[in-house]
Amino acid sequence: MSVRIIEVGPRDGLQNEKKILDTQVKAEFILKLLSAGFQTIEATSFVRADKIPQMADAQELMKSLIAAKVDLNKLPCLVPNLKGLEVAGDLGVREIAVFTATSEKFNQKNINASIDESFVRIAEVCNTAKKSGKKVRGYVSTVFGCPYEGKTSLETLKKVTQSLFDLGCYEVSLGDTIGIGHPEQVQKIYKEVKKHFDTSKLAWHFHDTRGIALANIFAAYQEGARAFDSSAGGLGGCPYAKGASGNVATEDVVQMFNLMEVDTGVDLAKLADASTYILQALGRSSASKAYQAIIAEKV
Amino acid sequence: MSVRIIEVGPRDGLQNEKKILDTQVKAEFILKLLSAGFQTIEATSFVRADKIPQMADAQELMKSLIAAKVDLNKLPCLVPNLKGLEVAGDLGVREIAVFTATSEKFNQKNINASIDESFVRIAEVCNTAKKSGKKVRGYVSTVFGCPYEGKTSLETLKKVTQSLFDLGCYEVSLGDTIGIGHPEQVQKIYKEVKKHFDTSKLAWHFHDTRGIALANIFAAYQEGARAFDSSAGGLGGCPYAKGASGNVATEDVVQMFNLMEVDTGVDLAKLADASTYILQALGRSSASKAYQAIIAEKV
Repeated sequence: MSVRIIEVGPRDGLQNEKKILDTQVKAEFILKLLSAGFQTIEATSFVRADKIPQMADAQELMKSLIAAKVDLNKLPCLVPNLKGLEVAGDLGVREIAVFTATSEKFNQKNINASIDESFVRIAEVCNTAKKSGKKVRGYVSTVFGCPYEGKTSLETLKKVTQSLFDLGCYEVSLGDTIGIGHPEQVQKIYKEVKKHFDTSKLAWHFHDTRGIALANIFAAYQEGARAFDSSAGGLGGCPYAKGASGNVATEDVVQMFNLMEVDTGVDLAKLADASTYILQALGRSSASKAYQAIIAEKV
Repeated sequence: MSVRIIEVGPRDGLQNEKKILDTQVKAEFILKLLSAGFQTIEATSFVRADKIPQMADAQELMKSLIAAKVDLNKLPCLVPNLKGLEVAGDLGVREIAVFTATSEKFNQKNINASIDESFVRIAEVCNTAKKSGKKVRGYVSTVFGCPYEGKTSLETLKKVTQSLFDLGCYEVSLGDTIGIGHPEQVQKIYKEVKKHFDTSKLAWHFHDTRGIALANIFAAYQEGARAFDSSAGGLGGCPYAKGASGNVATEDVVQMFNLMEVDTGVDLAKLADASTYILQALGRSSASKAYQAIIAEKV
């Protein structure tokens, strides 16, 4: 048995870290992750620098990686609009990611648009990306709950997921943006989306805000899920509760699957080295228990 | 649906904390836990002070709690031998816990006895406890793996569990002593023990060394498990990997079951208050993500 891990630390992780890192440090981090075996690493985001300062060097970063002769097929980038797509496309980016949410209030606060309005931008991006043969991945946020609305709608989830597939996304990642989901809810949502979609085209994006991410990943895996987003070393925090955790740590995910003898294609020791490198650059420790155990066992 | 949480922080948690606390601080911690709703709190351990210095004040602590008019039925104590039982019995302790392991090497290192030899002591303790009407709970360590032997035997597990029931234990707690278990292993072991035992008399004791405890608890719950040991605030560490986590944090367990609408009888806010109190006394932070999220949301 095997699963696919989509490493989102350089983008989703770092964008929630306050300390702005040098471009070369980010590039080195991504190179270390590539050498750990990841086939997909979300490298950066072509967004407005004033919105997310950590991503202001997206162009430089990609140029630096291209100079290091990376396989661009392995390095998708988030783009919020046509302008971002144009810059990414000029650099030779092969895969992009687009995003929306199941919550109207979340979309309003996050991108100042309703769900329908977000799809106007997404459609432009997807249609243009298609013409140049780029792959597009879709993100759906707040699938398991919203910091502003509380419970979110399964009907909306099905609608936005269908729209993303209709626009040509090869995979849609369903996100527990605030780490509020629980394993029985995962089972329920999985069974529901299975009625409507090819679940091999769905990925699962859990946050570990309340420590439940691995239980949710196991619940999804049991149902048949085989693609999971995670962040090396547990980079990033939770913008909705300062001091709390964000993305589930990739070490935790890989360690659990290793114990289950499920192949991830990731070398856990090399992954931990990449995490150590970036954590030292950020001057912070990791909340990942698997990472801590690996380091403790080394000493 | 409901589950029973056995709070082991004052014993299993604190015995792995270096800083020796005042007896009154421990008593206050236990009183706070009682007010959070726990029906069972393992209060202390009547062991040799030179072996576990943190438990040297077991007598004073129980006297202090008795003076505070606690219900002793809610406060089991660990006893390793007849001497410990005698001291506990003289104080009026109503329930005791005994322990062994599925690993010969672990038992040798932990209590300097083979598994068979451990049962000589356990039999003496159980037979004497029975005469004075005390309840006895049994612990089995290293069920999911041993720091010295690696994999441990299911046959040995069945043998020692049967022996503990034969000696009159009302419940046997199966422990993942080093947090190496994974959810598919939990399912496998659960299905195996179910063939031989009344699983309503089994409890599950997970450590969160690699962050997998909640996934394991969910896997066990799915199979039918309804009793779980955990430690407030994630007290204690892992004696086999310095810096790594020990017992799963009670906050994590209660939070997950709360989200699943499974009743634990525990007030999460009061539990977090008890944890804050003891963490401040220890001068340490908590590795519990649920605890951190509760604190972050308060700020």
